[in-house]
Amino acid sequence: MMRVSVGNVQNLLFEVLRREGVDEYSSSAVSKGLTHASLRGVDSHGIRLFRHYLAALNAGRVNGRPKFSFSKSSPSTSTLDADHAFGHAAGMKAVEETIQLAKASGLGAVSVQHSTHFGAASFFGLEIARNDMIGLSFTHSDPLIAPTGGKKAYLGNNPVCFTAPCDGEQPICLDMATSTITFNEVLRLRGEGLSAPFGSGFDRDGRETADPNEIVSLSPVGGYKGYGLSLMVEVLCALLSSAPFGPNIGHMYNDPLDSKRNLGHFFLAINIEKFVKTASFKHRLKQLVTELRQQERVDLDKPVFVAGDPEKVTSEERREKGLPVNSDDKEFFQKLATRHDLPFHVLD
Amino acid sequence: MMRVSVGNVQNLLFEVLRREGVDEYSSSAVSKGLTHASLRGVDSHGIRLFRHYLAALNAGRVNGRPKFSFSKSSPSTSTLDADHAFGHAAGMKAVEETIQLAKASGLGAVSVQHSTHFGAASFFGLEIARNDMIGLSFTHSDPLIAPTGGKKAYLGNNPVCFTAPCDGEQPICLDMATSTITFNEVLRLRGEGLSAPFGSGFDRDGRETADPNEIVSLSPVGGYKGYGLSLMVEVLCALLSSAPFGPNIGHMYNDPLDSKRNLGHFFLAINIEKFVKTASFKHRLKQLVTELRQQERVDLDKPVFVAGDPEKVTSEERREKGLPVNSDDKEFFQKLATRHDLPFHVLD
Repeated sequence: MMRVSVGNVQNLLFEVLRREGVDEYSSSAVSKGLTHASLRGVDSHGIRLFRHYLAALNAGRVNGRPKFSFSKSSPSTSTLDADHAFGHAAGMKAVEETIQLAKASGLGAVSVQHSTHFGAASFFGLEIARNDMIGLSFTHSDPLIAPTGGKKAYLGNNPVCFTAPCDGEQPICLDMATSTITFNEVLRLRGEGLSAPFGSGFDRDGRETADPNEIVSLSPVGGYKGYGLSLMVEVLCALLSSAPFGPNIGHMYNDPLDSKRNLGHFFLAINIEKFVKTASFKHRLKQLVTELRQQERVDLDKPVFVAGDPEKVTSEERREKGLPVNSDDKEFFQKLATRHDLPFHVLD
Repeated sequence: MMRVSVGNVQNLLFEVLRREGVDEYSSSAVSKGLTHASLRGVDSHGIRLFRHYLAALNAGRVNGRPKFSFSKSSPSTSTLDADHAFGHAAGMKAVEETIQLAKASGLGAVSVQHSTHFGAASFFGLEIARNDMIGLSFTHSDPLIAPTGGKKAYLGNNPVCFTAPCDGEQPICLDMATSTITFNEVLRLRGEGLSAPFGSGFDRDGRETADPNEIVSLSPVGGYKGYGLSLMVEVLCALLSSAPFGPNIGHMYNDPLDSKRNLGHFFLAINIEKFVKTASFKHRLKQLVTELRQQERVDLDKPVFVAGDPEKVTSEERREKGLPVNSDDKEFFQKLATRHDLPFHVLD
């Protein structure tokens, strides 16, 4: 696998967007957001999406120069009409407001409407936690989960993201899809001719199958519980924002690229200082995660992690060694760099 | 299985508590809360707990005449020192304040400290939803979940409860423990000499086992994801309230009954009207759940449910036929009724 430096690729994405007429705020949010996900090892939501994002921009689905419009409805709540911006830009704009609301009134929540794919939910949750608040970040997504007992995918594997600041390290971060595996993983298994773990997906008749070619919907984590969590996220993202719900949203890949997605997101910040001293909270969270990491191990060579630990390990490694790119993406980035006369170096 | 009418048993619990010196607010909250859980079929958190609650009251763990003290710290946040009240009373008091905060400022959150077992999280979440708001209700609990890769239970199977009001029916309600099965279920399987579903629990070495006698910790839903959700709830309940965390809380059964539990809870209300018209929200939620229920079924005789549907079915049935009681509990209730000269009738 070839690698490229984080700074190099983030700069490339930013400059390409700028030259495609995207405003500075959006270019910055998208280039940071995609790089953020790749750095943490969440490649499905990382720089490989840039090709799709550019295509969606050029086809008119995404608005590179959005007029953001907030309606503040109470001391702690606001709605953002994102004007079909890149989801990363819409989300980051909303999160800045969420933090301001919580600073002033203890809690802040922003509902986002008319948005698009926002990448990894952690990008927004972690921004809240870096401001010494507890963050929650949600989006709905393409239908991949069938209701328990139903045959057809209806809800997305809508992510639940929770973050909290911690002494002496990056915030803890749970960023989980509500399915046991992702559809990208199913595609990978198909490509490599491998079986899926039994119980990770259903065929068109709603029966569990290990054949990735037969999988049309994903198993929610814990069965009806994961389905319930998906429904919770759908209610927060679609019903508080007047966005379409379930299979009625605009689909990422299956709809024409000039069609709007009209996605909704929901962000919540809890101002820790309004409950306990922030310093004491962070100190006690450090104690809690330290006790968890020091638990006696089942296998001596497998560490006990806390939510976000694997991503911290990967971040450190990739910051040093660079982000992996496959040859297709490398070629794509190389072409963009050449076309716009921008630097792009493969590290090895 | 014998049955008793809902009204009869709720009245019995209320009157017994009053005669034991418990104040009216607490007596009402506990009798309603336990009956609520039994009515919905959540027997583990229902009237069978009354015996334990009375013992905890008499031993001094629980304060039947608490002085509730709120510290409102911002327009949307408050902390309740529950003075070791019954958790049902502490929780209901906190929820009333949560609703008031959200009415005034869009969102409301109350952190509860110095509390005890609060029963089913749905009791509080549904109260919020009946006030036309989205409700979230959390508590931490006795350690039952080991961190992924660890041998020993550290976090509780801390419940996540989400509620939302819906047109023409009771609110939808997800109230899920973060373990795949409950420890009460493990005890039942032990008692009946049955196997546990493989993958539902771990032995003392942290290995999956189907022998309920060997199970010392429960599998979190979706592995590390359920563990992450448990950690989220622990942070909200223990760290925002200055309560002890993980295995450091007072244990329900394993500690002497005169020891305080010092539990924390966390409640959040989202005022729907600050985002969209409440009537439109409820109408659209009805559409969403109706579409889900009408999905093509895997098995024709197994309906597609939405979070809270099974409990709605059970509630309707039990409201008509009465709550089931086993012979031990029946005898206990009968004795209480005789001692206090209160009515108690077994229906069949």
